[in-house]
Amino acid sequence: MRVSELSRASGVSVATIKYYLREGLLPRGETTSPNQARYDTGHLRRLRLIRALVEVGELPIAVVRDVLAAVDDPGTGLHEMLGRTIYAVTGTGTPDDAGEFTDRAAAEVAALAARSGWTVSADAPALRAARDVLARMHALDRAPGEEVLQAWAEAADRAADADLHAIDRSGSREGAAEAALIGTVLGDALLAALRRLAQESWSARLHRQH
Amino acid sequence: MRVSELSRASGVSVATIKYYLREGLLPRGETTSPNQARYDTGHLRRLRLIRALVEVGELPIAVVRDVLAAVDDPGTGLHEMLGRTIYAVTGTGTPDDAGEFTDRAAAEVAALAARSGWTVSADAPALRAARDVLARMHALDRAPGEEVLQAWAEAADRAADADLHAIDRSGSREGAAEAALIGTVLGDALLAALRRLAQESWSARLHRQH
Repeated sequence: MRVSELSRASGVSVATIKYYLREGLLPRGETTSPNQARYDTGHLRRLRLIRALVEVGELPIAVVRDVLAAVDDPGTGLHEMLGRTIYAVTGTGTPDDAGEFTDRAAAEVAALAARSGWTVSADAPALRAARDVLARMHALDRAPGEEVLQAWAEAADRAADADLHAIDRSGSREGAAEAALIGTVLGDALLAALRRLAQESWSARLHRQH
Repeated sequence: MRVSELSRASGVSVATIKYYLREGLLPRGETTSPNQARYDTGHLRRLRLIRALVEVGELPIAVVRDVLAAVDDPGTGLHEMLGRTIYAVTGTGTPDDAGEFTDRAAAEVAALAARSGWTVSADAPALRAARDVLARMHALDRAPGEEVLQAWAEAADRAADADLHAIDRSGSREGAAEAALIGTVLGDALLAALRRLAQESWSARLHRQH
């Protein structure tokens, strides 16, 4: 299809498609004449993926480019590629106003990971992300107690176990990367929504009868 | 303390503090002279809460105001107040390019809630949020299968069970609202980070030996 048809099919404007082409997020189409190129369903699919990452995952374009580069790079093994994908979509914390609680939070995260039997690289961005959020909760005097942290770790483990087994069933190497990306970024949003539903239900169970 | 001291203690600029005062996010201090007011640790605490909601939760100022109004309103019961708080921080989906999958996704979310034994209001924003994310995953041909959805629902239920019991232990009514707010908004970020850690660990377990 032509760029105008790709635009109609995807709902993405021609100007944005050209921007993604320039930025290397979308591979060039097959050139059919000096100023025309042909696009296929692979381009349409990639456009949908970019939009989901930007709109639902709220990832900056530069991060989307890095992530897609990891997906497209055939030279890396599955574990490493999943690592690059998941590392790229993990924020590295927030501006710090909880500095005095950082060491304590880091120790709590490390203890939780150890109790959960998780083996992770010492430079995993998620370690810093977890530490920074937990430090902020301490600064607000509302850090979760050990029991809640334990429940969250079990919840995370339950989800991740299913995630990785599903990724393994997703066929090709590129399919696995895409599944990891979508399941992680959009999955965060879905998990958060499910948690709200469960919270509402638990709140009704605990409070309505009083 | 004076506004300049409140600014130093909180790391929030005087201009931003004045903006929050005008917008009603921060209660006025006690007037000590025609152009001076005194602030206390309650103001400092509220400022830290606003910053966490804006910076970690990425909530718009208007949403922060609504949420804090729900927390501050003494006329509502605990279940209703928690509902207003949790509803206010739940995005109501994303621009829709997955329209054809919306009905299917809505049915899947309803079935999942029923299987999980969740009783939720039909107008819970999280129902729409879950539906819209799931519809997008379908449009990308990467929707989680029944097994993964089930695992995510169990994870959400495990987390929410602990959340609500912790909220119940948090003392005053205002304390409960604040705990719900922080545990939900910052808890999303912490849970997402823990899921990344668990994913890395599961990926190592499943792929490194091959």
